[in-house]
Amino acid sequence: MRQIVIIGAGLIGTSIGLAATKNGLTCTFVDSNPRHQALATQLCGSGGSSFADEEVDLVVVATTVPDLANVVLDALNQYPKAIVIDIGSVKTKVLLEVSLKVPSNDLSRYLGTHPMAGREITGPEGARSDLFAGRAWAICPHEGSNQADVASIEELIRSFGATAYQMKSEAHDEEVALVSHLPQLLASLLAGSLHGELSLAGQGLRDMVRIADSDPLLWSGILSGNQQAIKPLLRQISKQIDQLVDLNLSRESVERVIAAGVVGKSTIPGKHGGVDRDYAKLPVVISDKPGQLAALFAICGEIGVNIEDLSIEHSPAQATGLITLFVAQGDLSTLINELSGRGWEVHP
Amino acid sequence: MRQIVIIGAGLIGTSIGLAATKNGLTCTFVDSNPRHQALATQLCGSGGSSFADEEVDLVVVATTVPDLANVVLDALNQYPKAIVIDIGSVKTKVLLEVSLKVPSNDLSRYLGTHPMAGREITGPEGARSDLFAGRAWAICPHEGSNQADVASIEELIRSFGATAYQMKSEAHDEEVALVSHLPQLLASLLAGSLHGELSLAGQGLRDMVRIADSDPLLWSGILSGNQQAIKPLLRQISKQIDQLVDLNLSRESVERVIAAGVVGKSTIPGKHGGVDRDYAKLPVVISDKPGQLAALFAICGEIGVNIEDLSIEHSPAQATGLITLFVAQGDLSTLINELSGRGWEVHP
Repeated sequence: MRQIVIIGAGLIGTSIGLAATKNGLTCTFVDSNPRHQALATQLCGSGGSSFADEEVDLVVVATTVPDLANVVLDALNQYPKAIVIDIGSVKTKVLLEVSLKVPSNDLSRYLGTHPMAGREITGPEGARSDLFAGRAWAICPHEGSNQADVASIEELIRSFGATAYQMKSEAHDEEVALVSHLPQLLASLLAGSLHGELSLAGQGLRDMVRIADSDPLLWSGILSGNQQAIKPLLRQISKQIDQLVDLNLSRESVERVIAAGVVGKSTIPGKHGGVDRDYAKLPVVISDKPGQLAALFAICGEIGVNIEDLSIEHSPAQATGLITLFVAQGDLSTLINELSGRGWEVHP
Repeated sequence: MRQIVIIGAGLIGTSIGLAATKNGLTCTFVDSNPRHQALATQLCGSGGSSFADEEVDLVVVATTVPDLANVVLDALNQYPKAIVIDIGSVKTKVLLEVSLKVPSNDLSRYLGTHPMAGREITGPEGARSDLFAGRAWAICPHEGSNQADVASIEELIRSFGATAYQMKSEAHDEEVALVSHLPQLLASLLAGSLHGELSLAGQGLRDMVRIADSDPLLWSGILSGNQQAIKPLLRQISKQIDQLVDLNLSRESVERVIAAGVVGKSTIPGKHGGVDRDYAKLPVVISDKPGQLAALFAICGEIGVNIEDLSIEHSPAQATGLITLFVAQGDLSTLINELSGRGWEVHP
């Protein structure tokens, strides 16, 4: 695989271009927005490179969901030797629409995929070559898929640092309905309920509505395209809400809902594609002045303890802050001893 | 105000004890759990200090919501000269129950309050003297409140570093229904829907269910106690969900919900009691090995740039990671120049 055409120079399309260019592939961008097309082309440094349609090895369709099927169909026609993949958030609908309109030998060249990556900054400006590093990337082979093509797309995805998960398009759509589309709708519905002063708003609310800043146009295409999988989930939520109201939020009814949530939350795998890395946490009190974090991390570096993750409590106005370090379980006692031995206030 | 009795040696009660002790006040704890009572007493270093009931200036009732009213009533009886406050998450119900059972001259000594603070670690073990620093703390005077008492409680709250917000108990209950109770229920309902492999789960879902780990017993008391304010909000959410389902998640219907969420989200004030501290963000690429964070923060300390907050993208398995530094707007260009000048890969 050498020559790639990327249709749609948004965040995902341009990031794919950056990652592919880094791996020595050549990319050409096509976008109805000339500024996006020019910026993506410039970012990937592939200047005026263009190649004959017959020489294209791969077409990546990275448009919005409602356009996917038509653009895939056009690409299968225009580039007769290319594998054509799309990166849309919905898979069954696109596969169905494409299947209905192309001969099956052309269909074998189409493969639906979906990288689970994104950023708050959209458009080619937000693109990064490492956008997919450490992320899951679903690929959804169909009955007519060419296995060699599937393998080479998997290899490409791995070369971007992502983890490929093969699944049927229906299974994909049901899973994203649960882990992405339902959360988006609930975040938006919650945010949409907000009104008034809200001087008591805390971090819980802020976390819950973080994704409510989403693009209505983009998301209406995605959610509408996956209505079959989303509707049963919504019905179930609505039914449970109605039950809570009917029971006047009795303690038993609320207790059931909260307890079920505790169990459900525990089913989310660890951060890294299903492998649960069970880090130990260590809260440490720090002064809110320059140099404190440096001193803390210098000690961690010195004693060879890797900080896997960390969080700072949001209270910069106060004189002291609390930082929570996440480290491997085996490193915890060393870290506690070394830090407290040097006068740091730790709260294991 | 010198001598305080704290009834309920949990996270909040014990943290109040720590903050008060730090300010030179003397605290006695009462808890039906002898281990909690002993630990809180020990943490506050007020050893065996006890005083006559008539000498108590303030009683803080920090039990669970269903017990609040009875404990407040008992405290008003037992400590004839004390102001009695509670710190429960629900205010109207408690005020009503207390009002019905005490003479009005005793009622004047009762004041409902609610600190918007908490931690994942519950019980006296989680207590911190700075738990309230930078947090909002609602106080809900009633018609018979003694204004001098209200002022002295406000002063105490400010001495803990918190910001006091006076509001009617009904307004408090409506606001927490919106900013705390509805988010809790939606997080729990979402988490309760989860099932299956979930290999595609990303940060959006994880943020949405962070608070779903809550204690069912504690929260059933809170939510049940605020059912009047919560029910209309739940009905509205359920109605909107049913509409979405009825319209088969048409693009227009979804667009409306997402757009309303974008508007709603923008009404949330900044992190610090309404003052929006608008930090600049700087993403920096780091290697996943010990010492990288230390080196990065050493530079920040050296050039006098204070890191107000930070986040690490969750992909420790990859060779490089992305850390986002939050700094004052005025520090951004310095930081960019210094870091990139020293070979760090920054993405402003």
